[in-house]
Amino acid sequence: MSGPPTEGYAFRVEARDGDARAGVLVTPHGEVPTPTFMPVGTQGSVKSLSPEEVAATGARVVLGNTYHLWIRPGADVVDDLGGLHRFSRWPHSMLTDSGGFQAFSLTDLVKLTEDGFSFRSHLDGQRMHLSPEEAMRVQGLIGADIAMQLDVCPPGDAALPDVQAAVERTSRWAERCLVARRKDQAVFGIVQGGTNVALRREHARTRGDLPFDGLALCGFSVGEPIEKMHEVLEQVASTLDPERPRYLMGVGTPKDLVRGVAAGVDMFDCVLPTRNARNGQALLRSGRIVIKNAKHRRDPRPLDPTCGCPCCTGGYSRAYLRHLFLAGEILALRLLSVHNLHLFGAIMADARRAIFEGRYASFVREFLSEAAEPAS
Amino acid sequence: MSGPPTEGYAFRVEARDGDARAGVLVTPHGEVPTPTFMPVGTQGSVKSLSPEEVAATGARVVLGNTYHLWIRPGADVVDDLGGLHRFSRWPHSMLTDSGGFQAFSLTDLVKLTEDGFSFRSHLDGQRMHLSPEEAMRVQGLIGADIAMQLDVCPPGDAALPDVQAAVERTSRWAERCLVARRKDQAVFGIVQGGTNVALRREHARTRGDLPFDGLALCGFSVGEPIEKMHEVLEQVASTLDPERPRYLMGVGTPKDLVRGVAAGVDMFDCVLPTRNARNGQALLRSGRIVIKNAKHRRDPRPLDPTCGCPCCTGGYSRAYLRHLFLAGEILALRLLSVHNLHLFGAIMADARRAIFEGRYASFVREFLSEAAEPAS
Repeated sequence: MSGPPTEGYAFRVEARDGDARAGVLVTPHGEVPTPTFMPVGTQGSVKSLSPEEVAATGARVVLGNTYHLWIRPGADVVDDLGGLHRFSRWPHSMLTDSGGFQAFSLTDLVKLTEDGFSFRSHLDGQRMHLSPEEAMRVQGLIGADIAMQLDVCPPGDAALPDVQAAVERTSRWAERCLVARRKDQAVFGIVQGGTNVALRREHARTRGDLPFDGLALCGFSVGEPIEKMHEVLEQVASTLDPERPRYLMGVGTPKDLVRGVAAGVDMFDCVLPTRNARNGQALLRSGRIVIKNAKHRRDPRPLDPTCGCPCCTGGYSRAYLRHLFLAGEILALRLLSVHNLHLFGAIMADARRAIFEGRYASFVREFLSEAAEPAS
Repeated sequence: MSGPPTEGYAFRVEARDGDARAGVLVTPHGEVPTPTFMPVGTQGSVKSLSPEEVAATGARVVLGNTYHLWIRPGADVVDDLGGLHRFSRWPHSMLTDSGGFQAFSLTDLVKLTEDGFSFRSHLDGQRMHLSPEEAMRVQGLIGADIAMQLDVCPPGDAALPDVQAAVERTSRWAERCLVARRKDQAVFGIVQGGTNVALRREHARTRGDLPFDGLALCGFSVGEPIEKMHEVLEQVASTLDPERPRYLMGVGTPKDLVRGVAAGVDMFDCVLPTRNARNGQALLRSGRIVIKNAKHRRDPRPLDPTCGCPCCTGGYSRAYLRHLFLAGEILALRLLSVHNLHLFGAIMADARRAIFEGRYASFVREFLSEAAEPAS
């Protein structure tokens, strides 16, 4: 590592098992046991849940979306109210993405140049420009513990020259972000390269020369076959600087997380547990429950009798959850969200224990064989 | 009173101050200090909140809507799952309405005869018939502590002959409901009579001869001027049998509650606190906050610094609540609902204390003068 981590931040690996690591990420807002899953609080709220409910799932980092908070309520408003921690009452660690992904994917007529993304707000059509410097300024105002550099994320089916160009621009933007960063905020660098192992490894190597507090793999789960993602991950993740936390952005299912940890990843985020909850899906280790299905109509059982979440231990039956969901009651979305996030937290805790106990390979085998069972 | 109350139920008045009473209603699910406000759990859920959150507002009775639960998930399903208490995990007392009001107001082509309401479900068009006997059968299956007789509720501008006819049919249905009732469930009788004081008083008197566990005033807040309602209430509520709890159905605002208690009412229900919350209104003793208003954009203050609810004491700023509401985040609806229900619970607790301390008249004066301040 070419530079010291930002003051107040640290990362230590406490156990290794193959490429899998169990560690602790330290930020000014506390210690985060890794591997960790970060629930997504797109607009400053993990959808439908209170901060207390999110923390009770085991989560110790939540992710905020810079693009969304920038356009509403405005980064200056968040800053005025004491930063996103105080604004949203989240006492633990927090990370913001750079805003680039949403600026690119949610807006029309986006123009990508060497200076950044020019686009119109999807809310009111206002012209906006997101440069590396602006991404760092906005994230500085939002004030999460960890900011992400601005990067270029090509789609999963992009041609090699486009992937190469994205890598190169991401590299140039990395330098600009490190110049523009807030000095008391950690910044993670981003590795691109699509599904090209050589490109990914080379980009990972050069990222390691920069004083980033962590390194992220971006541009996965963007349309490429999921097996291809895992094939590349297995060859790339472990080549990222072992002294720094490794973050796989926007991934994924419970199986993806367990396999990602095996490949050497420490941090994950995904909207899947909360989004699927709002679509009426309860996730299980062995598949999923589609709560509106008629077979749950008179089912007095909890979603999962082995689950320790407030929904499963509190006496909420599948029959009641089905009724609430069909009736459009918000409580259904809350309970399914709590359950799903609790599952993700429990899987990360189980994975961590398995790494400490040197049985991660068998944990993965068992998990994947269970997870292969049909959905109920 | 012509008959004993149902076994397991009791009502005792512990203090009187003018016509206002402070008492305790006892049901198989515990003691309910009165006056009490009953949050509405239309479809087996007080919208957006968990049972624990509802109970924490001070509520000790929630109301379920028979019509809604009958058509979905079905009274037999609720019964199969152990009744509405267990189904919805509400450990305290519970009351269901008869279903007549919704059958009449939510459905098309409703036909009202001596035998009941014939209509089509607003969900799937299925033909349904709600007779006094069916209302008691369905409420028996749902299994709340307190069932309501089926009644006929004319609109606020109905002509006297129509109001008289409604009173008479409601009386005949009362007898049929008492025959058809579940013997271990309390049943409340209903007083109709619109804004005609003589009719109301006479109906109240004859209701007192029947073995109902409580008496309800229905047909208020159905379009008549609100001052007219209070004028009639003041002359009628105190004439209901003083030995039994008096329930004013579907009312109202904080001011209406405080004045209703002065008139001699013990129990209230209304969707106002939760519905207004979902529309972005936080209720205060001195008016209301329209949370989307621009002036709250950077306001770090809680909704009400004197309020003890989790939203106001938890550090949620008006600025954050405004942001959540504008962003369509469910957490906004939850927090505003908790705040509003907490206010209603606190007002009932304050009213009860004032009655015990013999200063209810001055409490009302003070409350109404505060409440007259402009909304913010």
